Amino acid sequence: MKVFVIGANGNVGRLVSQQLADNGDQVVAGIRKPEQAEFFEDQHIKTAHFDLLGRPEEMGVTLDGFDAVIFTAGSGGKTGDDMTLLVDLDGAVKSMQGAQIAGVKRFVLVSALWAEDRNRWGDAIRPYYAAKFYADEWLRYRTELDYTILEPGALTFDEGTSKINTDGLEGGSVARADVARVAIASLKQPNTIKKTIPIVSGDTPIEEALKKL
Amino acid sequence: MKVFVIGANGNVGRLVSQQLADNGDQVVAGIRKPEQAEFFEDQHIKTAHFDLLGRPEEMGVTLDGFDAVIFTAGSGGKTGDDMTLLVDLDGAVKSMQGAQIAGVKRFVLVSALWAEDRNRWGDAIRPYYAAKFYADEWLRYRTELDYTILEPGALTFDEGTSKINTDGLEGGSVARADVARVAIASLKQPNTIKKTIPIVSGDTPIEEALKKL
Repeated sequence: MKVFVIGANGNVGRLVSQQLADNGDQVVAGIRKPEQAEFFEDQHIKTAHFDLLGRPEEMGVTLDGFDAVIFTAGSGGKTGDDMTLLVDLDGAVKSMQGAQIAGVKRFVLVSALWAEDRNRWGDAIRPYYAAKFYADEWLRYRTELDYTILEPGALTFDEGTSKINTDGLEGGSVARADVARVAIASLKQPNTIKKTIPIVSGDTPIEEALKKL
Repeated sequence: MKVFVIGANGNVGRLVSQQLADNGDQVVAGIRKPEQAEFFEDQHIKTAHFDLLGRPEEMGVTLDGFDAVIFTAGSGGKTGDDMTLLVDLDGAVKSMQGAQIAGVKRFVLVSALWAEDRNRWGDAIRPYYAAKFYADEWLRYRTELDYTILEPGALTFDEGTSKINTDGLEGGSVARADVARVAIASLKQPNTIKKTIPIVSGDTPIEEALKKL
């Protein structure tokens, strides 16, 4: 499978890229700055320039020929910075449009737990949730993409357990490595298409959890 | 007609409120801070607290019993401030939801010229355009409201001429007073429902221009 990773230089994006490469998938890591290439070159992962502030048409050219896109970019939830609006929302929507232009149907978007319920948005990163909310909604209602929206809880740098809980009721945390595993497993499990999947660490192996959705 | 003005203390909102009152319409000016009431009290215009950072359910309570809402709020296009996302986009969408909760069908939204075409967004206030774009799109595709989206060109403090051009091709400027007149005239012209109307100063009297849409 040929997969393009948007936001590849982020903490989740690096793990997704590495895991895809380890699995033997063809992966291209979308990066914003040339100096971000080094990390990927060391691991023999191809890179391509991908500017989330660019135009959907340019993105479409870059995404041409891929089987799937995994969107892991994030401005990091800093407040007081319109990058939340321009990257987390507008950058995500333009990426969807780019995928559509390129004819790439499969689109996995990393969002945030409870993004769809504003009553549960934490005040401190409310702009980040708002951006995720509108991006998610665009993907659900304004595209024909075969989407999967992943909603991880609080992200940790643990190694992960490859076991998750997808009911989303209690909240909790999850290792970025497990979020990456879920993103990749989703590509191989058609049952995840058109689904929004809360992810916290749990007791169910990822593949089993995705089958039961 | 009983009209609620959101963002009433803004430059366009004040003019809309004053003109509605002058026309003999029942108007309530939605304001964020108590000290903003003085301007309206001097002119015998009622005010109500309306917090764009609040919840749709609260907005619905405030909007109950009105015939129409005119949304004129704007964070002013400052960059580096997530209020663009939280007010111009999320505040607008919550206001739409509040109107729906209250059963107010008629919703006039003041947007910006060419908000629907990202290729024409000025770089300096790109976040503002992005916020307007997603708010406009929500109003068009995610609500059942009888909406009118007004897209004024560069806003001036002139008195206005009550004459406009609605083709939107060339760009240009328009007096805030004329934007206010168009917002109010729209309420009385059913032909404006489900329309997006570019507005720059021109040669056609407002009512005639709206009839010809």
